[in-house]
Amino acid sequence: MAPIVIKNGRIITAVDDYTADILMEGERVQTIGRDIPVGPDVEVHEAAGLLVVPGGVDVHTHLDWEFGSARSADTFGTGTQAAAFGGTTTLVDFADQKRGQSPLAGLEDWHQRAQSSCVDVGAHVILTDVTDQTLEDMKTLIAREGVSSFKLFMAYPGVLMVDDAGLFRAMRVAGSNHAMVCVHAENGPVIQALIEEALSQGHTSPKSHMLTRPSLMEGEATHRAIRISELAQSPLYIVHLSAREALVSVAEARDRGVPVSAETCPHYLFLTDEEYDRPGFDGAKYVMTPPLRTQAHQQELWRGLRTGNLQVISTDHCPFCFQEQPLGMKYSKRLGYGDFSKIPNGAPGVETRLPLVFDGGFRQMGLSLNRIVELTSTAPAKLFGLFPKKGTIAVGSDADIVLFDPGETWTITASEQHSRVDYTLFEGRSVTGRVKKVFLRGQLIVDGTEWRGREGMGHFVFRGESGKV
Amino acid sequence: MAPIVIKNGRIITAVDDYTADILMEGERVQTIGRDIPVGPDVEVHEAAGLLVVPGGVDVHTHLDWEFGSARSADTFGTGTQAAAFGGTTTLVDFADQKRGQSPLAGLEDWHQRAQSSCVDVGAHVILTDVTDQTLEDMKTLIAREGVSSFKLFMAYPGVLMVDDAGLFRAMRVAGSNHAMVCVHAENGPVIQALIEEALSQGHTSPKSHMLTRPSLMEGEATHRAIRISELAQSPLYIVHLSAREALVSVAEARDRGVPVSAETCPHYLFLTDEEYDRPGFDGAKYVMTPPLRTQAHQQELWRGLRTGNLQVISTDHCPFCFQEQPLGMKYSKRLGYGDFSKIPNGAPGVETRLPLVFDGGFRQMGLSLNRIVELTSTAPAKLFGLFPKKGTIAVGSDADIVLFDPGETWTITASEQHSRVDYTLFEGRSVTGRVKKVFLRGQLIVDGTEWRGREGMGHFVFRGESGKV
Amino acid sequence: MAPIVIKNGRIITAVDDYTADILMEGERVQTIGRDIPVGPDVEVHEAAGLLVVPGGVDVHTHLDWEFGSARSADTFGTGTQAAAFGGTTTLVDFADQKRGQSPLAGLEDWHQRAQSSCVDVGAHVILTDVTDQTLEDMKTLIAREGVSSFKLFMAYPGVLMVDDAGLFRAMRVAGSNHAMVCVHAENGPVIQALIEEALSQGHTSPKSHMLTRPSLMEGEATHRAIRISELAQSPLYIVHLSAREALVSVAEARDRGVPVSAETCPHYLFLTDEEYDRPGFDGAKYVMTPPLRTQAHQQELWRGLRTGNLQVISTDHCPFCFQEQPLGMKYSKRLGYGDFSKIPNGAPGVETRLPLVFDGGFRQMGLSLNRIVELTSTAPAKLFGLFPKKGTIAVGSDADIVLFDPGETWTITASEQHSRVDYTLFEGRSVTGRVKKVFLRGQLIVDGTEWRGREGMGHFVFRGESGKV
Amino acid sequence: MAPIVIKNGRIITAVDDYTADILMEGERVQTIGRDIPVGPDVEVHEAAGLLVVPGGVDVHTHLDWEFGSARSADTFGTGTQAAAFGGTTTLVDFADQKRGQSPLAGLEDWHQRAQSSCVDVGAHVILTDVTDQTLEDMKTLIAREGVSSFKLFMAYPGVLMVDDAGLFRAMRVAGSNHAMVCVHAENGPVIQALIEEALSQGHTSPKSHMLTRPSLMEGEATHRAIRISELAQSPLYIVHLSAREALVSVAEARDRGVPVSAETCPHYLFLTDEEYDRPGFDGAKYVMTPPLRTQAHQQELWRGLRTGNLQVISTDHCPFCFQEQPLGMKYSKRLGYGDFSKIPNGAPGVETRLPLVFDGGFRQMGLSLNRIVELTSTAPAKLFGLFPKKGTIAVGSDADIVLFDPGETWTITASEQHSRVDYTLFEGRSVTGRVKKVFLRGQLIVDGTEWRGREGMGHFVFRGESGKV
Repeated sequence: MAPIVIKNGRIITAVDDYTADILMEGERVQTIGRDIPVGPDVEVHEAAGLLVVPGGVDVHTHLDWEFGSARSADTFGTGTQAAAFGGTTTLVDFADQKRGQSPLAGLEDWHQRAQSSCVDVGAHVILTDVTDQTLEDMKTLIAREGVSSFKLFMAYPGVLMVDDAGLFRAMRVAGSNHAMVCVHAENGPVIQALIEEALSQGHTSPKSHMLTRPSLMEGEATHRAIRISELAQSPLYIVHLSAREALVSVAEARDRGVPVSAETCPHYLFLTDEEYDRPGFDGAKYVMTPPLRTQAHQQELWRGLRTGNLQVISTDHCPFCFQEQPLGMKYSKRLGYGDFSKIPNGAPGVETRLPLVFDGGFRQMGLSLNRIVELTSTAPAKLFGLFPKKGTIAVGSDADIVLFDPGETWTITASEQHSRVDYTLFEGRSVTGRVKKVFLRGQLIVDGTEWRGREGMGHFVFRGESGKV
Repeated sequence: MAPIVIKNGRIITAVDDYTADILMEGERVQTIGRDIPVGPDVEVHEAAGLLVVPGGVDVHTHLDWEFGSARSADTFGTGTQAAAFGGTTTLVDFADQKRGQSPLAGLEDWHQRAQSSCVDVGAHVILTDVTDQTLEDMKTLIAREGVSSFKLFMAYPGVLMVDDAGLFRAMRVAGSNHAMVCVHAENGPVIQALIEEALSQGHTSPKSHMLTRPSLMEGEATHRAIRISELAQSPLYIVHLSAREALVSVAEARDRGVPVSAETCPHYLFLTDEEYDRPGFDGAKYVMTPPLRTQAHQQELWRGLRTGNLQVISTDHCPFCFQEQPLGMKYSKRLGYGDFSKIPNGAPGVETRLPLVFDGGFRQMGLSLNRIVELTSTAPAKLFGLFPKKGTIAVGSDADIVLFDPGETWTITASEQHSRVDYTLFEGRSVTGRVKKVFLRGQLIVDGTEWRGREGMGHFVFRGESGKV
Repeated sequence: MAPIVIKNGRIITAVDDYTADILMEGERVQTIGRDIPVGPDVEVHEAAGLLVVPGGVDVHTHLDWEFGSARSADTFGTGTQAAAFGGTTTLVDFADQKRGQSPLAGLEDWHQRAQSSCVDVGAHVILTDVTDQTLEDMKTLIAREGVSSFKLFMAYPGVLMVDDAGLFRAMRVAGSNHAMVCVHAENGPVIQALIEEALSQGHTSPKSHMLTRPSLMEGEATHRAIRISELAQSPLYIVHLSAREALVSVAEARDRGVPVSAETCPHYLFLTDEEYDRPGFDGAKYVMTPPLRTQAHQQELWRGLRTGNLQVISTDHCPFCFQEQPLGMKYSKRLGYGDFSKIPNGAPGVETRLPLVFDGGFRQMGLSLNRIVELTSTAPAKLFGLFPKKGTIAVGSDADIVLFDPGETWTITASEQHSRVDYTLFEGRSVTGRVKKVFLRGQLIVDGTEWRGREGMGHFVFRGESGKV
Repeated sequence: MAPIVIKNGRIITAVDDYTADILMEGERVQTIGRDIPVGPDVEVHEAAGLLVVPGGVDVHTHLDWEFGSARSADTFGTGTQAAAFGGTTTLVDFADQKRGQSPLAGLEDWHQRAQSSCVDVGAHVILTDVTDQTLEDMKTLIAREGVSSFKLFMAYPGVLMVDDAGLFRAMRVAGSNHAMVCVHAENGPVIQALIEEALSQGHTSPKSHMLTRPSLMEGEATHRAIRISELAQSPLYIVHLSAREALVSVAEARDRGVPVSAETCPHYLFLTDEEYDRPGFDGAKYVMTPPLRTQAHQQELWRGLRTGNLQVISTDHCPFCFQEQPLGMKYSKRLGYGDFSKIPNGAPGVETRLPLVFDGGFRQMGLSLNRIVELTSTAPAKLFGLFPKKGTIAVGSDADIVLFDPGETWTITASEQHSRVDYTLFEGRSVTGRVKKVFLRGQLIVDGTEWRGREGMGHFVFRGESGKV
């Protein structure tokens, strides 16, 4: 692999902003400087006028993931290729513990599926059955398998939900073993009661998905998770925060010094619950959990990004096709036609994060470029034990680098995406700012619209301590 | 029943404070005035120098109550006699729904036991099994049985606990039918995990009861109950609030106008967790739930009483004998000798409320006399649909009246109590202020240390709307 | 004066609600009871179907008051007659310390003017010059003159404003002498800067009055007054609270147990800043301080009344005529024609409080009748050392009683008012609920639309401890 | 000036942490990389085992500053040399507007005094007289003089204090001209009243300085400054925050997105008010404003540093000698012997910041090394318009670099300091971590205990936009 020099780019990290050349060699950044001498064996990429940012880190994706009777539509191959085109070079994806089984088995299974990855990937493990053996296995996962974060669901009773005792016990093990618990915070039982009531009253359309998942119950569960984590003395990470009430609890706890962090997702920042008023079954495209919220909530999320009460923007990429064909019913929203509670929960997004956040966050909402990098790369890398290997442009770090044209205006459309899913939440949206080149550990994998990577080139990332603030 | 005149007393209600005579006739207050003419057929009680207050209303007692394998030590006869000597003329006690049975059956059973009451009694019904039929039965209880409040437990998983869906569904029925839900707010599953862990580590003494029920988990559950009640649009009543964290949630909600109320109990106001350091099994006397807290919590409770964020002082009278004899093991704390988790949870208190609150609240902490009356009589009467029949001294109200000597100093001791229980939490405590005479619906039932009432004279009180603020 | 019996009325106090007869004798309530025997010398007033409430207590009026170059349009005679027709039998009005003079002189002057009062009146003293002598005089006023509350202005620099040092020093004297400080809380200097700027930019219309007094600066000053009172250990009373930000500070302090109370006024509850968009000079009618606020603020005020974070509704009756004639320019809003900063600040309201609050608070917003009485009579009486002489219907209290027809619908109009002012803020407003008869210390002074009282019959009320919660 | 390479150091920025070489050339960082080739003309400094951090930025010093009748004891020469030995390469010091004069004149005067600086210096201007001309001059200072921040005092009435109108007007100009207002937030008038009272009661010792400046009044003024800045739409910087109450207001505002920042100082983090109990006049050494607080406040400050609610640690270096000789009474604390109110307010600290914060913040309180750099260099540089010239180690930035030995333990003592002051607040304190070498724009100025710099080599720094978050 020849050395590569990126010349004259405007380099943005979570704190710095300067113009220089970058020499990558042996998968890492070797030198950063003015007018780096370029030998004959060196491949040069001119970056004048471009932003040079660390490869994105997306710590919330569900690739090739079984969820009830459905399965998310992307393989690790297609999903990671999509990520790369979106400027993301590291994912942390979810392995599952099946009830009655060991989480180690779930990780083993995930590794099988993840072999086709095109970018680097780490794994969280979802715990659904917190037995004494599970707690022991957590320690093994942390120390031996490089899995330093676990996800537990307070939603989906009977499917994924664990009770508060399980949550507490897992948190205690995480807290004393340098790991972190991620929580899907919604009050599952109350929501289940609302769903049953809606169905019994004949409400079957996608909009009922939203109506049965009130923001109050996201706020409640977020507060509960925080209090339990305080008792357990464990760092906590709230995934896909969408509601004002939840943000209030996070902010209050952070002000008291509680080590809780939270992510939101682009769809909560750019879309509102008006999408559920679309005719027919179209609203099903927007059935993810938590659902889209009102504009008032959205404004609070932007405020949270500005104030630092939200630390990460992830995608929660969990794609299901809108049409049944060609992938089959198992991969499709159609599973829930006629019964909103059967619509697979999830939406695509791994490919559109950076352009959306740049366009909306920097250009429109006035977040600094440093902050954009922090939210999409540095903060998740630090929180999940990937730093400084990932999450920055610094000497010695992996040469995961994105050249981004801040001036190019283009239109998002599903037909040009690299995921297997057949729609995008942002169809027809014009954005300014586009990924031009992507390097993964010093190798060019995206060159404009051309794919230069290959399945299997992504490495598994063994992660260190999570949750360190 | 001859008319009775109480002469020259200083009458205290939740708002007024004046000197006058009171004429009782036909169970009710007929006239209040200066120098009421006294005919020859009138019985006169001189009250110069005494406070004349409305009979106490205690909305939290467990008489003759089965709790797991234990049973509380008072019959309705002994318990209500003790109440009367404590200046309390109305109780609201708890009937239970057994799992798989109708709450109506539970009320029926309660009525059997309650026939021996010496003071007036109402019933809450504890719901343990929130089925569709239960929800229907709630409406019947409210409209036909005079039961306008229900209690649900967030603690004691597998025994009394209902899940959040059950809580929510019951709240919705209460909220739309002029009733109120009372909640025991502690996070049962997390506490259960702590208990199991303590036992597995060989911690068996009464102190572990306290250590396994952290205030954080009371705070969490209180917050959760409030949020669910907001969604359900139901008034909410938090029983036996003991923790700062819980009070913070109540105050925050009340400031937003959420119709939540809360009671605390004398033991939280006058005792601290230092009692659990007593030698041997003595700490078992103080095993009630929530447990006694630190002095810092206690100060917050006093603040809550001053600011109005706490509305009621009830006793949670749920007595178990310390010794096995003579009542038998079933009625004794000894059930938990060698395993704190088996100690019956509960303590006596129905007889000492008014003197303690007068001495500590008025004389030492500076609460006004009006506020003392409000906390122990008027507010619970209003919140639980007993007003204006109970809870005040006003023309037309039941002549439930207490003559109280504000200057008499005496010492609390179990040997002089009227409960069947063999100890008091306040043994040897000297207090100033003592109940001298008690009238129930115009009949003298307590005259100094002499008992003038009789079992069976207490009426069941059919209650109206609960939860009206 | 013959004994009077009011028969069969529905008596409402701050806590009770019952039907009975009331016997008044010798200026006081003598007896309350069912079927009080009526001798031949007794005057009987039938009150079946009517509410019988304690005479209103209005602790914020400015009668015959010099304010800069203007003077409020009511004499004590006309103003107190208007009060009586509004169901108010006690005012606490403002005497002034002139700069360089003793507050005792100000009180002396006030007594002269107040001789023509038709209802009972007490006095606060406004302090404008907090010297060592002033502090001494405060003690004299409290102990010898029955003046247990003082008002200081944080607004109107150069006219009425005292600096924070003066505020602090006065509070310390009040706090250690059973008195209370009332504060007009707006940041005077910042507002003055805004006014000067507005004038320099040619903004002269009444609307600029509102635009130059932002709610943020009311909130700031309220917070400041509270913090200074905490340091001074003095009870504090915030007059005419109009802004959400101010209410937030009051609520936060009350939750911590700080003895701060606050009043709002009917105009903030029933009108919004849209009135300033009226054509021409008409907006000048609504020039009071603080100005009318947006509907969002108004909703928060209603919430504050429900939650108990606001304790009193007073009128801040400070009338200036809209027309120059017949009273003269000195008494007219016309003083500020062409320069909003010269419009006399103030509006009438003493006659419309009870009907407005009954109609809006009880009938529309769901406040209880007890709460209406508490807000307009009992709470101000207790806070300002008038209780139990005033503020309740109880044996021994002054027989200040209002018979109120809850069902009569009528229309407010200036032409039927008894103030000298030529307009009302509520012209044409239809309200349900009307004062029918008013008794002052056992004498009928209002009988329907007929005036039965006379100037000079009002007594000065020597007040006891203020600020006791 | 020969190129310099620092080899093998562990480079810490506000976000990164890696090992590399740094090539400095022409005053700036030219290259950062692994194994940078070293030519014969290159000066090499080995840094293995050392931390390599950006030169410190201290935005709060008072050198050669007249304060009432006193003058701070350091010249720009001695003060900046002390700074350099403390690892600080940039100061922002205070120029003053004299009442009745232009702030431009104050800056001119400051430039005269600052010519002897050994490190780079910028200037804030203190405004004491906010006239229309002052507001115009502010714009000139921002645009033409590189002064983008102003300081106003809410304390010291009659000396430095401006009223709220002046504060507001200055903020408005700052807010619309990319500048920031810094505020000394204490309620001057109330404190003045307390001082006068203390003196009148014969309290003259240094401890009274603390007793007359309660934390409540710092909290009040902080809240007030924030609210006025919200109205003015200006960024705000709270200097020397010492009190919990102030921090609460800052946190609350930041959570709402208000652009307010705050600094604390090492003395508040490492000392408490117990120092005022020292015998004799010794407490005068600790007379700075605000005074030292209790340990409870100190814990909150550490919490604020962890949570991000405090952004900067500055020194407020304002030294006065304890002894009269040899500098003379003008420079000495003795001015206040016998009258605490005359003790010059201020203390030295510019030389001890980095070691104290490293030892206490990183080693004891667990702040990350990145956070230490952020607090002492990057954040102040960004907030005050010095970034990226100052505040980081990045290609193109000024080569202001400190080599810091994290393992060396030494003892702070006044006799080894470089300030002219004759004491240190931390005499005898043992700390681990010591400045070894300091480079200013690529020149070695500190080499162990040896001074290699010279007076006059420091540049004035023309600053850009302040207050950008």
